[in-house]
Amino acid sequence: MQPFSNRLANAVLAKGNPLCVGIDPRWESLPLAIRRKHDDGTLVGKARAFEEFGLRVLHLVAPFVPVVKPQSAFFEACGPEGFAAQWAILREARKLDLVSILDSKRGDIASTATAYAEASFDVWDADALTVNPYLGRDAVEPFIQSARRSQRGLFILVRTSNPGSGLFQNLVHEGQPLYQHVASAVGVWNRENLGLNGLGDVGAVVGATHPEELRLLREMLPDVWFLVPGFGAQGGSAQDVAGAFRPDGLGAIINSSRGITFPFSPDDVSWEQAIVTATREAVAALRKVTRI
Amino acid sequence: MQPFSNRLANAVLAKGNPLCVGIDPRWESLPLAIRRKHDDGTLVGKARAFEEFGLRVLHLVAPFVPVVKPQSAFFEACGPEGFAAQWAILREARKLDLVSILDSKRGDIASTATAYAEASFDVWDADALTVNPYLGRDAVEPFIQSARRSQRGLFILVRTSNPGSGLFQNLVHEGQPLYQHVASAVGVWNRENLGLNGLGDVGAVVGATHPEELRLLREMLPDVWFLVPGFGAQGGSAQDVAGAFRPDGLGAIINSSRGITFPFSPDDVSWEQAIVTATREAVAALRKVTRI
Repeated sequence: MQPFSNRLANAVLAKGNPLCVGIDPRWESLPLAIRRKHDDGTLVGKARAFEEFGLRVLHLVAPFVPVVKPQSAFFEACGPEGFAAQWAILREARKLDLVSILDSKRGDIASTATAYAEASFDVWDADALTVNPYLGRDAVEPFIQSARRSQRGLFILVRTSNPGSGLFQNLVHEGQPLYQHVASAVGVWNRENLGLNGLGDVGAVVGATHPEELRLLREMLPDVWFLVPGFGAQGGSAQDVAGAFRPDGLGAIINSSRGITFPFSPDDVSWEQAIVTATREAVAALRKVTRI
Repeated sequence: MQPFSNRLANAVLAKGNPLCVGIDPRWESLPLAIRRKHDDGTLVGKARAFEEFGLRVLHLVAPFVPVVKPQSAFFEACGPEGFAAQWAILREARKLDLVSILDSKRGDIASTATAYAEASFDVWDADALTVNPYLGRDAVEPFIQSARRSQRGLFILVRTSNPGSGLFQNLVHEGQPLYQHVASAVGVWNRENLGLNGLGDVGAVVGATHPEELRLLREMLPDVWFLVPGFGAQGGSAQDVAGAFRPDGLGAIINSSRGITFPFSPDDVSWEQAIVTATREAVAALRKVTRI
């Protein structure tokens, strides 16, 4: 396999857009046909429904988008069979040449961090993993080492898109809020291993609901991949995320979850067409603000 | 079920000590007999070995200790069957009247945080969960709401025991390092729901490798349960953790993982006796510094 940053850049260039589709299955939003087929009142039935829906979404969006991002929490809520579903979706993503980001926001220290990284890369076979930086240097480094051993990537939480994110992320130390200190650390880790496009393998999660901060962080971190959540249903517009890109149009992938995967009511029999239409519209909106 | 803080206090008082046994299974440390029985080169075999070992540890330590803490990373590294093993261990802990803390350091926002909490409490049926606070207010609150709906508890990462923990946790804002700002927030959340002993359901993870900080945080947070890792194999002595307790001897549980579960070499046929001896010794050491 090529280095992560090269694969990600190639995928974005091949599809001509930076859209990442978040796979966050929710039982009450699934198409009725899928719910009825699996609704036996057990977690196993729920997991099978999530798997069928997730796989179908992959096939619908694969012709258009470079990246998918399963949200691990919803699979974990189905018990062990939920993880089997997550695994099946990540395997299918690889078959379809989609870059996969496992959004599990793991964070621990030393050999425990290594165990999480090995689970993500060696077991689930994700291309990248989201990581929480609160535990510090020796919590992030085992993830970096594991990622580099297998040509994978990380996205470290820097600035999240939730309304209450500022409680700690905005605390100012020596003139800079905490999230900028985290950004600086990401910049140092990322610079150790730059790929062909001058971008590295330690990315940053930066919410789309703070466009000014996006622009500032782009300046601070010219060689860091950004994963930008909050586009679409969470409120961010294509214009809001414009500042996330480098002048060459690379450097950021923009996630939309519900806006792409649930643009229908459960009883809508043409839900698959609705997903394709939502994907095409999001891609078109993003193409207006990027020059890939 | 009684409220979490009452159950935890009752368990500590019933056993007469605050020891928490961490279940962090590692293949290379397991007794050879268990490895040989399950070693078929698959993740399923590894998961079954972890389950057999973890269940045996529970039965060995249950007569002596009030709390156990499975470390989710090592189970995740075995794939879906690893979660089945984690589940079996948490079920057995409940049968044995052990309070269980699922150490998975989850953290996300809104409905995603709720999904993690529901997985932990409704699926895995853990009594408490460790949570990472970096994402802020609306990331922690869904965990609190889920915990209170089912009389469970949380332990928020405040100050971790790893050498590199200071990278962000020590950044000073308005005269106080970040971890103390997190501690203050924990104090506010915890005070909303105090139990019979004047202790609440939103605890704090505070490493044993910083005894002075333990004392300071005890003063700041008189009604907060502390989960103190870093005792035993990680370097903290009973004297180092003495400052974690309230004058009544309650308020802290002290975790030891490897020191209790792996005090033997894999070829030692009397490994079960070694675990019992290590448990008795840790309990005796802690009894010298607490007055329960």
